[in-house]
Amino acid sequence: MTIKDARTPASDQGQQPSEAGKSIGWHKAYVKGSRPDLRVPVRQVHLTNGESVTLYDTSGPYTDPAAGTDVRRGLAPLRENWIIGRGDTEEYPGRPVRPEDDGLRHTSPRGGLRNLDAVFPGRPRQPRRGRPGQAVTQLAYARRGEITSEMEYVAIRENVSPEVVREEIAAGRAVLPVNVNHPEIEPMIIGKRFLVKVNANIGNSAVTSSIEEEVEKMTWATRWGADTVMDLSTGRNIHTTREWVLRNSPVPIGTVPLYQALEKVDGRAEELTWEIYKDTVIEQAEQGVDYMTVHAGVRLPYVPLTANRKTGIVSRGGSIMAAWCLAHHQESFLYENFEELCEILAAYDVTYSLGDGLRPGSIADANDAAQFAELRTLGELGRIARRFQVQTMIEGPGHVPMHKIKENIDLQQEICDEAPFYTLGPLTTDVAPAYDHITSGIGAAMIAWWGTAMLCYVTPKEHLGLPNRDDVKTGVITYKIAAHAADLAKGHPGAQEWDDALSDARFEFRWEDQFNLALDPDTARAFHDETLPAEPAKTAHFCSMCGPKFCSMKISQDIRREHGGSRAETDTGDESESGMNSEIDIEEGMAQKSREFAAAGNRVYLPVVE
Amino acid sequence: MTIKDARTPASDQGQQPSEAGKSIGWHKAYVKGSRPDLRVPVRQVHLTNGESVTLYDTSGPYTDPAAGTDVRRGLAPLRENWIIGRGDTEEYPGRPVRPEDDGLRHTSPRGGLRNLDAVFPGRPRQPRRGRPGQAVTQLAYARRGEITSEMEYVAIRENVSPEVVREEIAAGRAVLPVNVNHPEIEPMIIGKRFLVKVNANIGNSAVTSSIEEEVEKMTWATRWGADTVMDLSTGRNIHTTREWVLRNSPVPIGTVPLYQALEKVDGRAEELTWEIYKDTVIEQAEQGVDYMTVHAGVRLPYVPLTANRKTGIVSRGGSIMAAWCLAHHQESFLYENFEELCEILAAYDVTYSLGDGLRPGSIADANDAAQFAELRTLGELGRIARRFQVQTMIEGPGHVPMHKIKENIDLQQEICDEAPFYTLGPLTTDVAPAYDHITSGIGAAMIAWWGTAMLCYVTPKEHLGLPNRDDVKTGVITYKIAAHAADLAKGHPGAQEWDDALSDARFEFRWEDQFNLALDPDTARAFHDETLPAEPAKTAHFCSMCGPKFCSMKISQDIRREHGGSRAETDTGDESESGMNSEIDIEEGMAQKSREFAAAGNRVYLPVVE
Repeated sequence: MTIKDARTPASDQGQQPSEAGKSIGWHKAYVKGSRPDLRVPVRQVHLTNGESVTLYDTSGPYTDPAAGTDVRRGLAPLRENWIIGRGDTEEYPGRPVRPEDDGLRHTSPRGGLRNLDAVFPGRPRQPRRGRPGQAVTQLAYARRGEITSEMEYVAIRENVSPEVVREEIAAGRAVLPVNVNHPEIEPMIIGKRFLVKVNANIGNSAVTSSIEEEVEKMTWATRWGADTVMDLSTGRNIHTTREWVLRNSPVPIGTVPLYQALEKVDGRAEELTWEIYKDTVIEQAEQGVDYMTVHAGVRLPYVPLTANRKTGIVSRGGSIMAAWCLAHHQESFLYENFEELCEILAAYDVTYSLGDGLRPGSIADANDAAQFAELRTLGELGRIARRFQVQTMIEGPGHVPMHKIKENIDLQQEICDEAPFYTLGPLTTDVAPAYDHITSGIGAAMIAWWGTAMLCYVTPKEHLGLPNRDDVKTGVITYKIAAHAADLAKGHPGAQEWDDALSDARFEFRWEDQFNLALDPDTARAFHDETLPAEPAKTAHFCSMCGPKFCSMKISQDIRREHGGSRAETDTGDESESGMNSEIDIEEGMAQKSREFAAAGNRVYLPVVE
Repeated sequence: MTIKDARTPASDQGQQPSEAGKSIGWHKAYVKGSRPDLRVPVRQVHLTNGESVTLYDTSGPYTDPAAGTDVRRGLAPLRENWIIGRGDTEEYPGRPVRPEDDGLRHTSPRGGLRNLDAVFPGRPRQPRRGRPGQAVTQLAYARRGEITSEMEYVAIRENVSPEVVREEIAAGRAVLPVNVNHPEIEPMIIGKRFLVKVNANIGNSAVTSSIEEEVEKMTWATRWGADTVMDLSTGRNIHTTREWVLRNSPVPIGTVPLYQALEKVDGRAEELTWEIYKDTVIEQAEQGVDYMTVHAGVRLPYVPLTANRKTGIVSRGGSIMAAWCLAHHQESFLYENFEELCEILAAYDVTYSLGDGLRPGSIADANDAAQFAELRTLGELGRIARRFQVQTMIEGPGHVPMHKIKENIDLQQEICDEAPFYTLGPLTTDVAPAYDHITSGIGAAMIAWWGTAMLCYVTPKEHLGLPNRDDVKTGVITYKIAAHAADLAKGHPGAQEWDDALSDARFEFRWEDQFNLALDPDTARAFHDETLPAEPAKTAHFCSMCGPKFCSMKISQDIRREHGGSRAETDTGDESESGMNSEIDIEEGMAQKSREFAAAGNRVYLPVVE
């Protein structure tokens, strides 16, 4: 959407180099808030007609040449003074970092304990948590009627009043995921009254990839519009990878602590314990993880409901918890210890993402008893979480055919008291592996229109392999399309101004403006160059689809010039009327127009541009 | 969808070479009809578990090694005996081919007149048309209660009774586009009670491309699932290009005769006449064009309604007609001569595709007065066309935000007496040039779910350039996804069997079956190989997303083995019940299961496959 208000961007850092080294027409700028250190980044697109369009920007300081980022030092801790200023948190020595945190229990060449500083070479730090008896979460502040700097920040970003932000958080209809240990974050909000958000998953696996790759994937994903990033690493060095990702991330980072906990017991689900899990959650909370997926809704009695499914349990977390429940014939330790978990998350302002461990993994399994039984439990857990002042969102499916999508969001909103819904797609068919960004982009756009607050992206590699750089970009762009299409359909204020600006540029053959306003300027420009590479084509009043003689846009412009310009004289009627009604008025004006048109040589085409 | 009935495929030509020369697990087969020359092609996928899945196939004889195709001779005229057998058409010398038919009026090195044989080196032929007084269209036959061979053919393809096909055509709710001069066609049907169809546009332009490329694009598009192809050529050699495309096309070919007519007057819209247009329609009908887009709804009084639009008129045909109307200050010659045009189309069984020349070209212009005024006229013209026994479909938008899509299809169905709707997307946002296959794939899936019968594809190059081979494939695959997602949502009989077969293969780690069942086996296989190239990975019981230790599918299988196998004993209840209700029964069974699970070593993971 466009941010359109009286606030003037505070700075404008000049031309940005694009990937290809060309200068492009957009700039990082900032909108000032009520205090000097509250500066909200925007992407300002300068058009060739002298106008400019201001767009939401997730790319962080990396696109600001004045910021001087260094991946080994991490980003500046923007929020540190806000957090300290509130006076309700304190530093403490923190849990020592153990070799097994990086999956090195048996093979560590290093051995021994470390502190956080040893993991990351940037500025020294100790973890921080709420002082005893203090409710430090954004939810607690919102309920107390206080507008935090984070709330003001997102209000500017969303072009709404800070009070709307506070109200939505207080009601549990929105979350503002900001761990007190992630001061580098540029705050953002997730809720159905706000812009639809997109999450990108990264993460190394037992099979492939490295720390540097994951940090690079994170910055790459936010460059294209990811609003949050989940680090789903499962292999070695997951503690260290996460530390590097967090210290360099301008967006909230989510995790699934169960994955790391399972690594600590060498993948033997039955050896998992509440103590190991709890320790892992504290470890990650101290690092600054902003939201955690917790599969506490996978209860023992629901596991048998999946036995006759087409594709059983497809959530990794869900299947791990199901295996644990079966092995012990006990209720899930996450469900049993949920209140204690709430106390931990509350101390750091970690947001719950209550995982749908029993989500359907195929069209056949959509909306079944297992899925909806778990959803009811997630609603119950969400109420408990909010009682502990923990911000909470609810995860959703999965694979769902189009006609069953609305039931999901409607039921979730009803059962879960309108807590933000965070869905994976859903994929609307199973038959297109290698194109599941598209099968799911369809479902994502629809469910977001109907109220989903955040969409977890799916890349072309889903079901087939680990996404590479191109896949991450394709996934993010596809989901930004779904999210923006939903913003339009919801009538989000300002959303259509972006479309209007691009369509104006298209109609007026301002090619460079079309490229710069595009979700992906580089690819749009490259595609145009492929057919019409010459520089004059960038100003040509036609495109390669039709060529100069057939250009409908050109003809249409001529019609407007010949006829539309005299609309006021001929009074051709309101656009909301049927064309039939004003036929006579039109005919009179048209006779005159026809003479003028002929006098001008009936010129409806421009000469060919060589 | 799958074709599942008692009919046994008549032949099975053995392994097909894929692009990479590897043998793959699907084969061209045929389902026999009531006469020996009525053989309906299917794609039969052979699974590693001994089962097979039969899928709809649009690829024509090119994927049948026994067919021996030769692009210079054209395809065998499958329908010729059916057409001749009906005895209601006759051959005649036909209109001579003139140099200007190929855009060579001023510069022809050849000069003079030619006949059709000179244009294409294949078998000699004369055009054919209905004998005087004979109503030869499929609509006429359907109304007379006769089931033609073409109707039987599509009934087998769609897995419905021939009577359903006849009824839908007779009611005007479906069209079966089969020009009597296109005997090479494999008949298909377009209507909301049938599988959603996809059209791919090809066509050279004034700027670039050649005859060979267009024929190759056509066969390439049908290889990936295009149900019809529109030849939108606008440059030189359009008559010859069309002849080559038609003689080699197993799918219906559509055109916009106005484009060629405009070439004949050197692009000067005001010089167009009814006589030139009519002559062009006859020229194309004699060649065998199966359906023609006719922008007869762009009436003089509607043109001013577009003057204040964001993007005016974006349809090329629409803008040409608008320019003509303005230049002459006269009602459209297409509208004025529509009945005569019906008589011509009826003689060849050319189907109308009544063009939406005033479709919106931006989100801002969606569902406006101009668009809906034209739609009302299209409804009126459709009634006239059916009175002349001409099969008719109605074209639709364009650019439409999600919340305005349903109004389009609902209004079209109401105004146009449920005539098949044929929509371009619609694009659900304007901000993603280079990704408009996705912005429009979202809208296409939705509008098809709600009743659109055929979707005109959009490629990634939309708005930017001419699609190349990869773009055509991406466009077709994206739209096959949209169409199949809609078939699922509509509950089309058999549609879900395809998804189920693929999901079964996925759950059982039958990688080769997943690839072979995929819409695009080549890309699915390539993506898998990228992360896990080794051959053992093809039989691995995990995928690269999670690695061997975290595989949820594997864990899920263990759950099923340990628990699901004993479902009958423990009576865990109907899936439609909530999990809550059967908790006590479950607990009893679970204690036993837990002991069994432990006795088996709590094994939920397979060893790592090296």
